[in-house]
Amino acid sequence: MLSIYFWIVPACAAVALLFAYIFFKGMMKESEGTETMARIASHVRKGAMAYLRQQYKVVGIVFIVLCALFAYMAYGPGLQNKWVWFAFLTGGFFSGLAGFIGMKTATYASARTANAARRSLNDGLKIAFRSGAVMGLVVVGLALLDISLWWILLDYFVEEATSSEKVVVITTTMLTFGMGASTQALFARVGGGIFTKAADVGADLVGKVEAGIPEDDPRNPATIADNVGDNVGDVAGMGADLYESYCGSILATSALGAAAFATNPELQFNAILAPMLIAAFGVVLSLIGIFLVKTKEGASQQQLLSALGRGINISSVLIVFASFLTVYLLGLDYMICGSIITGLVTGIIIGKSTEYYTSHAYAPTQGIAMSSKTGPATVIIKGIGTGMISTAIPVITIVIGIILSFLFAANFSFANMSMGLYGVGIAAVGMLSTLGITLATDAYGPIADNAGGNAEMSKLGEEVRHRTDALDALGNTTAATGKGFAIGSAALTGLALLASYVEEIKIALLRVGQATIEVSGQVVNTAEASLTDFMTYYDVTLMNPKVLAGVFIGSMMAFLFCGLTMNAVGRAAQKMVNEVRRQFREIAGIMEGKAEPDYAKCVEISTRGAQREMMFPSLLAIVTPIVTGIIFGVSGVMGLLVGGLGSGFVLAVFMANAGGAWDNAKKYIEEGNLDGKGSNNHKATVIGDTVGDPFKDTSGPSLNILIKLMSMVAIVMAGLTVAYSLL
Amino acid sequence: MLSIYFWIVPACAAVALLFAYIFFKGMMKESEGTETMARIASHVRKGAMAYLRQQYKVVGIVFIVLCALFAYMAYGPGLQNKWVWFAFLTGGFFSGLAGFIGMKTATYASARTANAARRSLNDGLKIAFRSGAVMGLVVVGLALLDISLWWILLDYFVEEATSSEKVVVITTTMLTFGMGASTQALFARVGGGIFTKAADVGADLVGKVEAGIPEDDPRNPATIADNVGDNVGDVAGMGADLYESYCGSILATSALGAAAFATNPELQFNAILAPMLIAAFGVVLSLIGIFLVKTKEGASQQQLLSALGRGINISSVLIVFASFLTVYLLGLDYMICGSIITGLVTGIIIGKSTEYYTSHAYAPTQGIAMSSKTGPATVIIKGIGTGMISTAIPVITIVIGIILSFLFAANFSFANMSMGLYGVGIAAVGMLSTLGITLATDAYGPIADNAGGNAEMSKLGEEVRHRTDALDALGNTTAATGKGFAIGSAALTGLALLASYVEEIKIALLRVGQATIEVSGQVVNTAEASLTDFMTYYDVTLMNPKVLAGVFIGSMMAFLFCGLTMNAVGRAAQKMVNEVRRQFREIAGIMEGKAEPDYAKCVEISTRGAQREMMFPSLLAIVTPIVTGIIFGVSGVMGLLVGGLGSGFVLAVFMANAGGAWDNAKKYIEEGNLDGKGSNNHKATVIGDTVGDPFKDTSGPSLNILIKLMSMVAIVMAGLTVAYSLL
Repeated sequence: MLSIYFWIVPACAAVALLFAYIFFKGMMKESEGTETMARIASHVRKGAMAYLRQQYKVVGIVFIVLCALFAYMAYGPGLQNKWVWFAFLTGGFFSGLAGFIGMKTATYASARTANAARRSLNDGLKIAFRSGAVMGLVVVGLALLDISLWWILLDYFVEEATSSEKVVVITTTMLTFGMGASTQALFARVGGGIFTKAADVGADLVGKVEAGIPEDDPRNPATIADNVGDNVGDVAGMGADLYESYCGSILATSALGAAAFATNPELQFNAILAPMLIAAFGVVLSLIGIFLVKTKEGASQQQLLSALGRGINISSVLIVFASFLTVYLLGLDYMICGSIITGLVTGIIIGKSTEYYTSHAYAPTQGIAMSSKTGPATVIIKGIGTGMISTAIPVITIVIGIILSFLFAANFSFANMSMGLYGVGIAAVGMLSTLGITLATDAYGPIADNAGGNAEMSKLGEEVRHRTDALDALGNTTAATGKGFAIGSAALTGLALLASYVEEIKIALLRVGQATIEVSGQVVNTAEASLTDFMTYYDVTLMNPKVLAGVFIGSMMAFLFCGLTMNAVGRAAQKMVNEVRRQFREIAGIMEGKAEPDYAKCVEISTRGAQREMMFPSLLAIVTPIVTGIIFGVSGVMGLLVGGLGSGFVLAVFMANAGGAWDNAKKYIEEGNLDGKGSNNHKATVIGDTVGDPFKDTSGPSLNILIKLMSMVAIVMAGLTVAYSLL
Repeated sequence: MLSIYFWIVPACAAVALLFAYIFFKGMMKESEGTETMARIASHVRKGAMAYLRQQYKVVGIVFIVLCALFAYMAYGPGLQNKWVWFAFLTGGFFSGLAGFIGMKTATYASARTANAARRSLNDGLKIAFRSGAVMGLVVVGLALLDISLWWILLDYFVEEATSSEKVVVITTTMLTFGMGASTQALFARVGGGIFTKAADVGADLVGKVEAGIPEDDPRNPATIADNVGDNVGDVAGMGADLYESYCGSILATSALGAAAFATNPELQFNAILAPMLIAAFGVVLSLIGIFLVKTKEGASQQQLLSALGRGINISSVLIVFASFLTVYLLGLDYMICGSIITGLVTGIIIGKSTEYYTSHAYAPTQGIAMSSKTGPATVIIKGIGTGMISTAIPVITIVIGIILSFLFAANFSFANMSMGLYGVGIAAVGMLSTLGITLATDAYGPIADNAGGNAEMSKLGEEVRHRTDALDALGNTTAATGKGFAIGSAALTGLALLASYVEEIKIALLRVGQATIEVSGQVVNTAEASLTDFMTYYDVTLMNPKVLAGVFIGSMMAFLFCGLTMNAVGRAAQKMVNEVRRQFREIAGIMEGKAEPDYAKCVEISTRGAQREMMFPSLLAIVTPIVTGIIFGVSGVMGLLVGGLGSGFVLAVFMANAGGAWDNAKKYIEEGNLDGKGSNNHKATVIGDTVGDPFKDTSGPSLNILIKLMSMVAIVMAGLTVAYSLL
């Protein structure tokens, strides 16, 4: 059944992994610089690996329990197929692997970036960016490889009466693979987010505020943990996160393609292949973009930014051509290109809006800095107010994006629901198609940050530190764009998953032997029922109290989840504060630099805190859709997912933007505005920045995954909901 | 058509207004104390009246414009009936009047409370509480009187073919009256909220922080504005707000009753009457409760609290009996009592949860106080985290409340949708039935607060100040319970209004001449179509992209509205800061107490700021449902309302609780815990409190009204949506 075009997908995956390997080797050839630089980098690397080992142990237990549950569902009451537990496991494994490789690369790259920055700005940029590209390419390469392998495997083993039924089983089984990736990603994001912010807040509060030593000072016991945090949170966490987004959007769209073209076996396989092929072409175009990134010595921040921007822009423009090529090769309707372009433009606008609201080149962040004149309280009020207002443009953009991508694919008819939703899914794929390069610019950030830390701790010259600062500042801006794509794609993918959920309900009904459903008094074959039929059958309308109950619970989940992770950071930071105080008190000669602090102990504290604290919110995300399904049934679950999607998206934008704006308001003052560093204004914005830390690096980004994980859980557990719902 | 039982409603309204008058006269007989006390009270009174005059002028213009629009809709294309503009006007008028009378009473009562507190604690409590009761009784009295008068009027003038059609026209016309009340209430809440917090923040930042003079010091030019703010925000704003909630819940439930019993003309009128009658009995029971509130000298806060609690508890228990009596008199199903009791219990649980999360007797607020040990940033993080977590219990409670009140009225069948939604409406009425006394305890708060301010400014003895402090502290706790009822009833009323919207769509369709609709291939008479038929006709399911677009916009509206009001407070406070600084600089002898500051100027600044800043967010709330309707049609509007309801409810709970907890965490330290007043811990919590001010007194409470106003606008504009929707 595999067409010739299918093989483009694993081929491009191989190309991505090959170049990732080449970039990695190229980076490793560089020197780590002085002995001190190498030693510091080794400390960070060991700490990061120690964290990941512990993290994978804990997550492993969760995976074993869930796998056992899936195995029981499959082999016991027959509520799932027998591939599910294995698909789930591999999704989790590869998501973790993508993060692991990205992080390993980043920890090798930081000292080398600092060392290269001793030569020139361009050398520093190249090392840092190519190392970031390793993660970008590993994520897309592994994702496409896994998807291809699974497809080949299931194509060989699955046997169904018709080829149409077969692809439906294959695509929905592969969604389980997405749930594995989401589960791993949520733990990675939440755990990593708590680790990094506990270390960051702890290091700052005792080191900078109490002891009065500068940031990244080697005498601070938490400073290594802080640098480790950048790697485990911003690299490993983000890698797992985007692996999940990327797989999720492709898999959900494929499943919708299988459903939308169910009556057209000719094109069905091609519709499933389309998102994979667009992604595959995106890999090649990302590579082209990556090679275009370079700069010259003494470049201004604007020039550095446009160096990175050039790479991304060219990749994006080329994707438009690639989408036409895909549609041409697969014989689909050219209108689908409209959906792809809509997705791409939506991502870009959300990214630009994020940049406007969080860069200190613009009024909103400057306004927050300005409000420091009346103290920290007004900085917080203004930051929260601005963050909330900043949700308007992304929401309006995503609404237009949904409607347009739906209408393009549905031939401008709202009645053509399956095709329309396929269009929404393919818009998400379009948005993420250049992930290879956008993730490279994203992962570049923490590498440059760590390089700066290494330069400071190793006491490299002013000039070097100046260069790493320039690279670091650049990372903050590109991260904003990356977040725009991550969050926008989460909303579109969430919507596609909602539709996949209905498809899965259909399969679950057939599995429990319900061959017909009654829709408005007429009997319809379950296998042939449309999306709208299922909506009517389950009364998934806005007047059904079960739907409304679900909406309330979904809206609440976003807030509860954020609240739990915010407080988790607070508690873990408190433990770090106590440990750093203890070391300052008990280790003789630590302040004179004669004795080395116990860095490993701080890493351990952050690790333990993160492991303990990540369990409850993450498990809550898994358990809530199951419990809602058992109590309120299908309509309740759909309400839950929509409520979570609406509130979660808006809350995520708010938290990410408020956090980013506070950070840059502080940087604005540090650049010498409003009386500059050390002034009362500066102190007020430091408080804003500390509040913003868990906003933008723990709670906010976790929400993207929460939205999708809840949908994935609902999809995988559909059988349970159909069989055992109470009300 | 008016039954004998109908007349109980205006009779109870008259009783409420009579006792309000008696309590007012009783309070006025008391002395205002020393000349200084009277002078200060007069300053506050004049400032408050000046504000209200300005406020009514601005709001008046908005009302004229909207009335013109309604008149055009009625007399032009015939998209509304000709009563609407007048009903809208009276709703706005009476809502404003309730706030005006409440505020007038409060401004007369504060000096008298302070003076009575010179005699004894019980005398102080009695004056303050009975004055609060004036507002409670005026709100319920005016509301029931207006509802009765409108009913009598429309019963006389409206002519329709059948009595069933007639009551449908009457009840939906009366909903417009609710929109008038909501519009007035939103302006009052937003304007009042901005006024009070601008004055409060401005007075604190320059007076307390910069000049180092104590709170409520007469040398501070903003101190009168601060006290005025308590009256215009917490009294007039709250009065208009709860008048709107009360009317809204009764009117929506009556409209649902008319629809649910459309095929049973025997009981239809009784079903409409039921919510009014429960409210009428509630007035009498509130009065009984009010007379039970008394205390003895030297009472502890716990004793004071239980004095107020006794009144509320007895009223609530008696309501259970009153609900059985109502159902018995009207010949309805006794199961409806289950819905009423569900509503009451839901309100009480939400109130208790609010108390748990915001009182410093419990762990959450103490935890926030504790986190001050590591500075203001951790106070803010912990407060936001705790506030977000605190949304879980109210949401779960409201979900159970919705399901149970629905099932009780619907005879435990989800299919019986009209009756079930009527049950949800009547639960909201049950929750608000004791508003006479709960609002009394709510309005009591700012009166006690102002009495304390007056005592401080008039330099009354330590003992008096101690008594007013005890009364003030009590007010903070009772306010929490009141907020629980306000927010819980907003959610239930929002749901009832959603159902009313569908009823209104039916009328609008008939008005534009569409006599039939096609539902799943069958032709149904519009007049006889069920709620479910309309859901199917307009495809208001969760897979319709227009519904999802609406949900996203609705979720965003809650955040955008909060963000705009937060920033409005920030800007208005900034202007106040500049003015106070100017007066300190330019008025010679002001710091020595030789020259009186220009209080009026500060009141004017706050007034202007509030008027300017309230326009955009308030108009946005009115315009958004109209624009959404014109672009996305009925399904988009319903998505908007549900998205706004879900996000708005959760966000409102979060903001109210976080704000309340920060306030009380500061008070906890001021009581001597954690190094007490003046310590660094105290300073950190003062910052938390300042951030919490707009949370709990501006943005949070406005969200309750936003939820309902958007629904009301949608209902009144249904004709426009039906006639001109684009997609």
